[in-house]
Amino acid sequence: MTLAMDAERRVFSDGLVAIRDDRIVAVGDRRELAARFLPRRIIHARGDAVLPGLINGHTHAPMVLFRGIADDLALHEWLTQYIFPAEAKNVSREFVLWGTRLACLEMIRGGTTTFADMYYFESAVAEAAAGAGMRGVLAETIIDFPSPDSRTPQAGLEYTDRFVKQWRTHPLIIPAVGPHAPYTNSTETLKQVQAFAEAHNVPILMHVAETRTEVEDISKRYGARPVEYLERIGLLSPRLIAAHTVHINDGEIELLRRRQVGAVHNPQSNMKLASGVAPVPQMIRADVALGLGTDGAASNNTLDMFEAMKTAALLHKLSTNDPKVVNAHQALEMATINGARALHRENELGSLEPGKRADLIIVGLGGPHQVPVYNVYSQLVYATEASDVKTVIINGRVVMRDQRILTLAQVTVLAKANEFRAKIIRSLKSK
Amino acid sequence: MTLAMDAERRVFSDGLVAIRDDRIVAVGDRRELAARFLPRRIIHARGDAVLPGLINGHTHAPMVLFRGIADDLALHEWLTQYIFPAEAKNVSREFVLWGTRLACLEMIRGGTTTFADMYYFESAVAEAAAGAGMRGVLAETIIDFPSPDSRTPQAGLEYTDRFVKQWRTHPLIIPAVGPHAPYTNSTETLKQVQAFAEAHNVPILMHVAETRTEVEDISKRYGARPVEYLERIGLLSPRLIAAHTVHINDGEIELLRRRQVGAVHNPQSNMKLASGVAPVPQMIRADVALGLGTDGAASNNTLDMFEAMKTAALLHKLSTNDPKVVNAHQALEMATINGARALHRENELGSLEPGKRADLIIVGLGGPHQVPVYNVYSQLVYATEASDVKTVIINGRVVMRDQRILTLAQVTVLAKANEFRAKIIRSLKSK
Repeated sequence: MTLAMDAERRVFSDGLVAIRDDRIVAVGDRRELAARFLPRRIIHARGDAVLPGLINGHTHAPMVLFRGIADDLALHEWLTQYIFPAEAKNVSREFVLWGTRLACLEMIRGGTTTFADMYYFESAVAEAAAGAGMRGVLAETIIDFPSPDSRTPQAGLEYTDRFVKQWRTHPLIIPAVGPHAPYTNSTETLKQVQAFAEAHNVPILMHVAETRTEVEDISKRYGARPVEYLERIGLLSPRLIAAHTVHINDGEIELLRRRQVGAVHNPQSNMKLASGVAPVPQMIRADVALGLGTDGAASNNTLDMFEAMKTAALLHKLSTNDPKVVNAHQALEMATINGARALHRENELGSLEPGKRADLIIVGLGGPHQVPVYNVYSQLVYATEASDVKTVIINGRVVMRDQRILTLAQVTVLAKANEFRAKIIRSLKSK
Repeated sequence: MTLAMDAERRVFSDGLVAIRDDRIVAVGDRRELAARFLPRRIIHARGDAVLPGLINGHTHAPMVLFRGIADDLALHEWLTQYIFPAEAKNVSREFVLWGTRLACLEMIRGGTTTFADMYYFESAVAEAAAGAGMRGVLAETIIDFPSPDSRTPQAGLEYTDRFVKQWRTHPLIIPAVGPHAPYTNSTETLKQVQAFAEAHNVPILMHVAETRTEVEDISKRYGARPVEYLERIGLLSPRLIAAHTVHINDGEIELLRRRQVGAVHNPQSNMKLASGVAPVPQMIRADVALGLGTDGAASNNTLDMFEAMKTAALLHKLSTNDPKVVNAHQALEMATINGARALHRENELGSLEPGKRADLIIVGLGGPHQVPVYNVYSQLVYATEASDVKTVIINGRVVMRDQRILTLAQVTVLAKANEFRAKIIRSLKSK
């Protein structure tokens, strides 16, 4: 069963995807296409689903090393007593490198082929992702406080400048700049970021309108809601990828659409941190480019896009009191073709079509929790787990085959993660 | 790591659980206890979590055969155009037998050791569960319409009478009676059910206050809200296990507590069908015996208690705007010791304590999505998947060992499920 996720949403019950180097060259019915190719290698997927690799539109990959360190806390306590001190004492280039390797193990295992990331030492995220064979839209975080790698936002932009130059020609890495949020950066910093992004032609990743407090804060400071404020200072453009967009009104949805901003919904993080419910059905109706993300593992606590799809579908049925809202097709679109649109990469990613990058996954449908299959979209969104993913191909390279990850030494990465765990626990004890 | 889930919520980093026949005889620190026993068999679980088997407090096991047959529909359309016709044309003793076997495969794989069920041909549910080595509180459904196995509620009670007599001495099966809901049974039928349950000393399983429509309907018919109505007609007692209890007010919560009714929360079903948000934090505060369930696979679509725990914890943080609500401990309690309380079996089930039934599971904690482990409760609730369960012991018998289910022929069950799928599809085409 091949799900193309193309404009016609074609599904081939006996499909074939032909790949040459890093590109898809044909997708269609096996019996029609098979005679046209003399393949060097065939990967069979009988009984499985073949679909575009999932796109995790918002995460902080290295934070997997803080997974479960402080749950069930009020946001302020969580940030100021756990996450900020843990970051201040532990985040180094090594931490980011190994944390991202752990995150890549988890993401590949769960069928994610592209992730959009915001963190510090982002060149180490790039190094780990490239080594794992994963595709990333990777943003160095710019923030108006001393960060683990930069004392000032200007130093952050200088870091980003080196980072962009180093990685911009790599086939898997799209370097980007990540101003943390409207409330943690001054207008001046945001305008510098915008100028930087235009000069270097890179995307901008930012948290936008995540919490009620942010809306109140920005309204008080600037007399405008977050998206309105960003419009006023010139940040809204097809360059922007806005994570969360929870507290936005109809006018702001229209601004996102008109300015072709990408938006990324993070249902599990928004629930766990009690941030609120993003107006996803309204954004879908308005045709905003809307992707789906897991957020970082300190606030979810997994990077599991199957969970994110199911939770997105369930959450908005409940919040709108309408069980027809965010159906299985739409949830899968958010994780594939619309995730690509949100990252402004729909010409390259998000569907199985000739000319696109060969990012695809093979997912088992035969587990006791998945049988019988009446509708493959329903089964993928409502009944499939990360652990059902069998094989992952990114940029034409097989990075996981029959549940064996080929690009990372799992035992080493897990051992390193446990070394960091011990250090992190010690660091939090010594005040 | 052994989580006893006893009154002190003891956790042993190097624990031991001693089992004799079907009972736990000791739980504690391995170094203290090991010398007291000369075991015939040792199952090592180093690095894993050992905890009480999960209790699925509400499901309709055979409906796994309808998994995903009709998603993303309005409730009325879903029921009248898909589920009711599919049931009328397909539900037979064979259907129930094989459907339950498939459900048992899924539940054992995901660490469920006890399930509470309401369906038709419930003696076939019992046969399949007993064969799979699973524990069940199994209720034959009584409804004021012709059902797949009984033309009238009286015929249903006669069926239940035979069912109870046949299964009441089986060590794994607790037969019960299941009036479908206040709105689908007359007061007279409900009183007959109550008398039957008292005469036979069996539990009563019922859907209660699931939807707004039900509350309106019952209020119109009887001038009282559903729980108030059940109190008035004498149905509230420690015999009752009430599924859903979504639309209940503080007075009704107090009634549930005072009458020692068991309640079962089904977060994913309530979200998917847009039923509403049960007042779980209030029920926990009031110390209502509150368990957790998946509901049937036609409305979830899995029987995965790990998903149910995570969703329960996330949902109530969001709905109360408080990230401290329903913490990981409480979510795990709902699936273990409080699930046992909800089924009125807390003297036998739900924790690892000497004298209790030997129902326990070994869960891996070493996957890339679970590492590192700072807090084992957090990790089990927020980061663990059904597929991380390694070994399942029910009533002292190993039913799954290192992810191999020993009590069911998986290949046969999956093949049978696909046979039923083909029949069901044909039956829905022929109008």
